[in-house]
Amino acid sequence: MTYKAGIVGAAGFAGIELARLVLAHPSFELVAATSDALAGTPLAKAYPAFAGVTDLAFSTHAEANLSACDVVFLAVPHTAALGMAPALIAQGVTVVDLSADFRLKDPQTYERWYKTPHTAADLLRKAAFGLPELTGDELARASAERARGGAALVGCAGCYPTATSLAAAPAIRAGLVDAQGVVVVDAVSGVTGAGKKATERTHFCFANENLEAYGVATHRHTPEIEQILGLRAGGLVFTPHLAPLNRGLLSTVTMPLSPDAPLPSTSELVQLYRDFYASSPLVTVMPEGQLPKTASVAGTNRAHVGVVVHEAARMIVGIGAIDNIGKGAAGQALQCANIVFGLPETTGLDYVSVPV
Amino acid sequence: MTYKAGIVGAAGFAGIELARLVLAHPSFELVAATSDALAGTPLAKAYPAFAGVTDLAFSTHAEANLSACDVVFLAVPHTAALGMAPALIAQGVTVVDLSADFRLKDPQTYERWYKTPHTAADLLRKAAFGLPELTGDELARASAERARGGAALVGCAGCYPTATSLAAAPAIRAGLVDAQGVVVVDAVSGVTGAGKKATERTHFCFANENLEAYGVATHRHTPEIEQILGLRAGGLVFTPHLAPLNRGLLSTVTMPLSPDAPLPSTSELVQLYRDFYASSPLVTVMPEGQLPKTASVAGTNRAHVGVVVHEAARMIVGIGAIDNIGKGAAGQALQCANIVFGLPETTGLDYVSVPV
Amino acid sequence: MTYKAGIVGAAGFAGIELARLVLAHPSFELVAATSDALAGTPLAKAYPAFAGVTDLAFSTHAEANLSACDVVFLAVPHTAALGMAPALIAQGVTVVDLSADFRLKDPQTYERWYKTPHTAADLLRKAAFGLPELTGDELARASAERARGGAALVGCAGCYPTATSLAAAPAIRAGLVDAQGVVVVDAVSGVTGAGKKATERTHFCFANENLEAYGVATHRHTPEIEQILGLRAGGLVFTPHLAPLNRGLLSTVTMPLSPDAPLPSTSELVQLYRDFYASSPLVTVMPEGQLPKTASVAGTNRAHVGVVVHEAARMIVGIGAIDNIGKGAAGQALQCANIVFGLPETTGLDYVSVPV
Amino acid sequence: MTYKAGIVGAAGFAGIELARLVLAHPSFELVAATSDALAGTPLAKAYPAFAGVTDLAFSTHAEANLSACDVVFLAVPHTAALGMAPALIAQGVTVVDLSADFRLKDPQTYERWYKTPHTAADLLRKAAFGLPELTGDELARASAERARGGAALVGCAGCYPTATSLAAAPAIRAGLVDAQGVVVVDAVSGVTGAGKKATERTHFCFANENLEAYGVATHRHTPEIEQILGLRAGGLVFTPHLAPLNRGLLSTVTMPLSPDAPLPSTSELVQLYRDFYASSPLVTVMPEGQLPKTASVAGTNRAHVGVVVHEAARMIVGIGAIDNIGKGAAGQALQCANIVFGLPETTGLDYVSVPV
Repeated sequence: MTYKAGIVGAAGFAGIELARLVLAHPSFELVAATSDALAGTPLAKAYPAFAGVTDLAFSTHAEANLSACDVVFLAVPHTAALGMAPALIAQGVTVVDLSADFRLKDPQTYERWYKTPHTAADLLRKAAFGLPELTGDELARASAERARGGAALVGCAGCYPTATSLAAAPAIRAGLVDAQGVVVVDAVSGVTGAGKKATERTHFCFANENLEAYGVATHRHTPEIEQILGLRAGGLVFTPHLAPLNRGLLSTVTMPLSPDAPLPSTSELVQLYRDFYASSPLVTVMPEGQLPKTASVAGTNRAHVGVVVHEAARMIVGIGAIDNIGKGAAGQALQCANIVFGLPETTGLDYVSVPV
Repeated sequence: MTYKAGIVGAAGFAGIELARLVLAHPSFELVAATSDALAGTPLAKAYPAFAGVTDLAFSTHAEANLSACDVVFLAVPHTAALGMAPALIAQGVTVVDLSADFRLKDPQTYERWYKTPHTAADLLRKAAFGLPELTGDELARASAERARGGAALVGCAGCYPTATSLAAAPAIRAGLVDAQGVVVVDAVSGVTGAGKKATERTHFCFANENLEAYGVATHRHTPEIEQILGLRAGGLVFTPHLAPLNRGLLSTVTMPLSPDAPLPSTSELVQLYRDFYASSPLVTVMPEGQLPKTASVAGTNRAHVGVVVHEAARMIVGIGAIDNIGKGAAGQALQCANIVFGLPETTGLDYVSVPV
Repeated sequence: MTYKAGIVGAAGFAGIELARLVLAHPSFELVAATSDALAGTPLAKAYPAFAGVTDLAFSTHAEANLSACDVVFLAVPHTAALGMAPALIAQGVTVVDLSADFRLKDPQTYERWYKTPHTAADLLRKAAFGLPELTGDELARASAERARGGAALVGCAGCYPTATSLAAAPAIRAGLVDAQGVVVVDAVSGVTGAGKKATERTHFCFANENLEAYGVATHRHTPEIEQILGLRAGGLVFTPHLAPLNRGLLSTVTMPLSPDAPLPSTSELVQLYRDFYASSPLVTVMPEGQLPKTASVAGTNRAHVGVVVHEAARMIVGIGAIDNIGKGAAGQALQCANIVFGLPETTGLDYVSVPV
Repeated sequence: MTYKAGIVGAAGFAGIELARLVLAHPSFELVAATSDALAGTPLAKAYPAFAGVTDLAFSTHAEANLSACDVVFLAVPHTAALGMAPALIAQGVTVVDLSADFRLKDPQTYERWYKTPHTAADLLRKAAFGLPELTGDELARASAERARGGAALVGCAGCYPTATSLAAAPAIRAGLVDAQGVVVVDAVSGVTGAGKKATERTHFCFANENLEAYGVATHRHTPEIEQILGLRAGGLVFTPHLAPLNRGLLSTVTMPLSPDAPLPSTSELVQLYRDFYASSPLVTVMPEGQLPKTASVAGTNRAHVGVVVHEAARMIVGIGAIDNIGKGAAGQALQCANIVFGLPETTGLDYVSVPV
């Protein structure tokens, strides 16, 4: 069986990657790729990687017959999804949203961090959080709802929250981390994370041969990470950084051991992480003594995770590597859609990164 | 039906890429990946892109049961293939050689450029040159021989000859190029082209933020390009360059129009090129006004070709973009194997490059 | 003695590099750095390399008291210099123009390639072409004029013409190159060459891990190279390329030997080039067997040149490496200014590139 | 007055950068640049940045007449300095050591982290720690000793400790940081930090387009940072990372506010940092709202520092950006030498980074 899929905002980096993945997917058929700015332009003209691959052209949001889709992926800026999702859901179309609009369970948290009203708070209650390895139950409910003939809504996790949470969740959920302490997250992203818009920030000559932090104490992924990991307010210091590469995101998470917990060894923690991800085919825990590299997952929907115990400081250092546009955005959205539509979660996502 | 495949020299850049491709191929089964240096090491340890993907480990050349393979890929330095191919062929194993040992039809040319005797000149006559879009007849003969129960031998084209010949052949074979003139090829390769060996040349800090030419007037791909394109001795100046990227090879080929030929327009040439590659699904000719970019084919077996007429100088400028490890090595070898084994040539090669 | 210097268009890549050089120059004092877009912004805010170095802020073109300058550098787009230079010259201010407006001796050539009228054709006759190693006589005349109390006008060479001409001139001026043949130039530039404007072309994610040609048969540096080297119309095929680095430009120039010329050896040519540049302290000819690398001159006003004879094809391959913003723009402008003001040409330009 | 300077280990990345700096220094004369591996080779051959700049060749350590030097810089691996410094000091030669051998005040700490005996513990007591902005008193004593006719010994700070300590010291020395808490340092370095040796780690194709952490909980700069900042054992979690650029090091330091301290504002902290570095011309504190970028200091001996208060977590985030080979190694060594020889500390170090 084939499901009709539409991508709104297909010309952006996450959207076009989704187009690549959906075009090769055995069970989804790409029927619309919208971009108001590029409407009428073939995908292959804007992104020559598609030359010889597809004749599909971008269409406007308006002219795309999205209500005829089984699933619509919203690869749009925040607030835009708030405007589109309700009507689609009402028409029985499952929505997988890559924006921030349906991630935060509490609309007030959304309003505080995004400085705009949340106009679809009722849908929030319905929305499943899309990070399958950690929120499988929510996605299972969404899948069940779709199976009953309803429309599901998934708010996919952001890139930093994905890498960070995969690196931290096994330790935190095992109760090893001090709930009164502060988790410190320093994460580094490639420049695709800054989006397609040409700005000084994304100019080659400014981004190249440079390292910098940004959004210190103010980045909007903060409440999302706190929510996924169940951290108290003030329990997280999150500092994102930019480095000169296209794709890749590495999150280094330093977590204080609970005062009650006996000091685990690194090998015990590696085992705990492996057990945690035993049924997650797209997450691999590195063996003790080996740490994840983003290059090993670039272009894929895989995550590599490592963990080390810092004995002297009684800290756990978890490290997560993903492709920020893959597992951090487009791949994850497709993985969520697979689950919602009852397909094996790796369908159309079983790529292996180019080894060098 | 599944064919058993072995890769000799699987730890190098071309070898490991072949491993990636063969592991995902529906009709070849990877039964041996040899590396004397890394024997016993899991692929996933040496190249963590395979973590969670395969448990296969490298074996020594000696311990691999290559004679039980249907096909063996030789991703080895030149002269090594000379030593291995004869025995494999004699055992009925089809050999797809990625080295230079079976590319040049004339053993004396080999000896002059490689400064070593060609010890299997008889096999040279048997060998098909592996650049499917240009030597389809040779590969068809090899396929027929294998179908009759024999073992085929393919000497795959090198990376620079592939990009260069794809950019030049349509014009040359149409008789548009002055046979007494000189074709000038300036080609630029990413650093994977310099191989896996850690040297000053491949050191990040020396290769990064640098451009240089090398091997001026002496590069060994010169006679290979001359052979494919049927150029007279002295009819080619080939200058390779190195640029700071991993994968990608761009060849700019400047060809003098034959004095007899009427001046074609660029659009006529684009059409001529399109007709030439009409039945080559992995080669795309860019529309007039658009030029190939290596990023559009990185990680794939595709080639993008562009062509422009320089009216004032009566020259044709052909430009070819490939992934030097993909279409320039591993992908092409697999494409040749597909053809030899009677499979559609794109089998297991239908990847689309990550769009950004 | 200190001369007052102004930079118009100081916020662009060439302009800001000039600011860096002038600020450290012993005989020029930077009194104005104009940018209409950034007027009022400290240099250190726009380019934090200047933090802790200077408090100077950009001013508008209008408010800068340029007529009080001894020299004004115009780092502006073409046509803008046409608008500004005449008044400055009339006020006795020496003008060093980095744009294309005063490079081409024939205004009709300018009009054909730049598609706009040349409104200061009389000044063209006055203008010295600024590529000191090849046009020392023109600059000497300009210097003499300034010494007599006049205002000099220099139209500095472009980046591609500089690297190309330095690599080709010794052979051509020695009469070794066939005047009826075609010189083929394939040159590769870093992304600073595409300017400061944030566009898809200069977006990190599109430029990174990519190689491409552009402007084939149409690049405006073509007539400039023809003029410097004295090539006949149709005697040059120039193809520029873009590679993923900030600064660096490598030009590979393939020149047909004159049919009358006896075949020289590479070592003879190296010697000829060394003699040619014997009194040019900023140009170094590589020893036989060694080729120039752009990294070796990055951040400086130096040029490295190599030359090889291709015997079989009777061709000379000359290779020039420069920093496109250094010797290709800002550094060269300052070198010209040094000459015009009677200073040693290396004054304030004696930097050595960071070795790695 | 000119002082004779020798560099031992001049072929490595720090050594050759020192050679560049010393060659242009007005008061030091480079009389020996040693490299046993490259003895006899001109600097300009190994590093063509010096072509046309100097004819100096590397010499062996043995043949260099180091005892005739006023100062010898040791740019050698750890333990090598232990072997060389004592004799030089005994001969009255001032030694500026870039290795780790004379950094740690406690020889037992050295032995624990470097797994080798400290064979010159008496010299340790004499050694000044070389990080001028934080250990000016030690360097003043060393300078006084030299002025009295003695030989000084400086053990220069490592790259990570330099960036980290500059970012943290003002807050810590002001008593704002909880002495019982844990400081978390995540730092990212360019690949020059991994040294000149060609390894898989420094191979372009493995380092490019990749991010990774390494040495988690075990990196040898840990005790050095603890020492400079006066942290208790267990009071630091230091995780270094590698990113794809040549030069640049960014250290993000997350520090818990002392429970007694009133919550400062970011602007108060910026002012506190500015006051702290008021007499340090090579350190610049970024204004509130602006964060340091490594590109702004690349190729120089400058440091840019930023600081932000994380109110919800009661944490201070300090960020330091340096060039790891400049302020992190060679530049700092020369700055220390300037101080020891009574010269202005910026002598020969007043470079401004290329703005793009």
